[in-house]
Amino acid sequence: MNFKQKLNKAIKDNNSLLCIGLDTDIHKIPKHLLKLNDPIFEFNKKIVDKTFDLVCSYKLNIAYYSATGISGIESLQKTINYIHNKYTGIPVILDAKRADIGSTSEKYAQEVFDAMKADAVTVNPYFGLDSIEPFLKRKDKGIIILCRTSNPSASDFQDLKIRNEPLYIKVAKKIVDWDKKYKSCLMVVGATWPEELKKIRKIAPNMFFLVPGIGIQGGDLQKILEYGLTKEKSGLIIHVARAIIYSSYDCNFAQKARIQAKKIRDEINKYR
Amino acid sequence: MNFKQKLNKAIKDNNSLLCIGLDTDIHKIPKHLLKLNDPIFEFNKKIVDKTFDLVCSYKLNIAYYSATGISGIESLQKTINYIHNKYTGIPVILDAKRADIGSTSEKYAQEVFDAMKADAVTVNPYFGLDSIEPFLKRKDKGIIILCRTSNPSASDFQDLKIRNEPLYIKVAKKIVDWDKKYKSCLMVVGATWPEELKKIRKIAPNMFFLVPGIGIQGGDLQKILEYGLTKEKSGLIIHVARAIIYSSYDCNFAQKARIQAKKIRDEINKYR
Repeated sequence: MNFKQKLNKAIKDNNSLLCIGLDTDIHKIPKHLLKLNDPIFEFNKKIVDKTFDLVCSYKLNIAYYSATGISGIESLQKTINYIHNKYTGIPVILDAKRADIGSTSEKYAQEVFDAMKADAVTVNPYFGLDSIEPFLKRKDKGIIILCRTSNPSASDFQDLKIRNEPLYIKVAKKIVDWDKKYKSCLMVVGATWPEELKKIRKIAPNMFFLVPGIGIQGGDLQKILEYGLTKEKSGLIIHVARAIIYSSYDCNFAQKARIQAKKIRDEINKYR
Repeated sequence: MNFKQKLNKAIKDNNSLLCIGLDTDIHKIPKHLLKLNDPIFEFNKKIVDKTFDLVCSYKLNIAYYSATGISGIESLQKTINYIHNKYTGIPVILDAKRADIGSTSEKYAQEVFDAMKADAVTVNPYFGLDSIEPFLKRKDKGIIILCRTSNPSASDFQDLKIRNEPLYIKVAKKIVDWDKKYKSCLMVVGATWPEELKKIRKIAPNMFFLVPGIGIQGGDLQKILEYGLTKEKSGLIIHVARAIIYSSYDCNFAQKARIQAKKIRDEINKYR
């Protein structure tokens, strides 16, 4: 089963477009976990155990792990292995925003798919196609290319107009082209830019969008669903991290995260 | 001493604009090293011991190390520590092409500067300024922003015209602006695009360019120096990896690498 098939199955099985972000920060997890051997992994494990039936995927941002070097990477690998082994049907996205010249991107593909065992990865389009091809050649994987990012400065370059069309639209069109050949492309479209998302959906009517920016970053869920759902009421991976995983700091944090995740999953489904 | 001061001192002390790339691949190093405990580190150590007086910096592309997971990252950290401890004056660039939304870029800054101890890092501009600011806030570090990359597909997006000016020129102008405030910016300009480099030099007459693409990628050294040197006959960090470090596969590989490095260093100096 390739990534898109695995994702579609999880969406159906769990009736969910919610992707929980395990962007776990040692300074933000409940204090009682700190006495354990690997607090980050223990936190993730408990969150996953309480939410696996509510999500279409998990996303781990590698920066949260590599920030502490080797020990963080170990927690990341343990978490991904845990999900693969215990919840086989749930795909794992590694949010790594990688890209380099072709021969180096090949090494990054080894990092994310062979060393870290991700089902899908986010990549940056600035280098152009040959930087993304080493990822695309892994046909069973999902390659999620940045189109419109959720941060305020996204407009610095992504809004620059090329013959009346902003750069992010040019990028969206290229991704649609690339997907015709490689079949494994998805794209990142930030929830903080609903009007832009609407335009991108017109260009890519059937493509999956990974949508970060709901929750702390302030994206408007209702608008995103109204503008972003495909005709089949799918096509969005709604990513929420902090607003779910840090629902509580007490011993009951995972159950509280479940309640919050269920609420958001159901809220999304109201519009489907 | 901040990165640019350290770099300028190394350029002067070693009379060199050459940056050796330690993009070390286990499949390409001499076979006799494979019986050692950490062949990658042993290879790097020997190359560094034979070339430290010929370079203005070393650059390690993190992808070559993270491709093998934890063990690769350990070799990377050991190499950087070795250079810092034994050759204090030589700056170490971590080529990581990082960038994400601000709060995540903060984690990447921790990865490259705190966990990996780099003096400088390469970053990708696609997200805009707020993704780069967490790096720029580390005032003693060098922040090397992609402008024109050396790969063939660089033209996919970087050549798109915004009111008759290609994107890479817009990016170059932004980098010059950002450097006025933050003082720690440099930029990547591929040696495979001499005409583009010439245009960027006009926009950024005094800025340092990290120039990959000489050697295997086919960049023209003479043209790059003619178009790229500043008035002070500096301003370029000429990066060469494979054409130096894989000069030989026998026991004498490090001495052969030295001969090749000296040849390129001196070749560069002919035009200064």
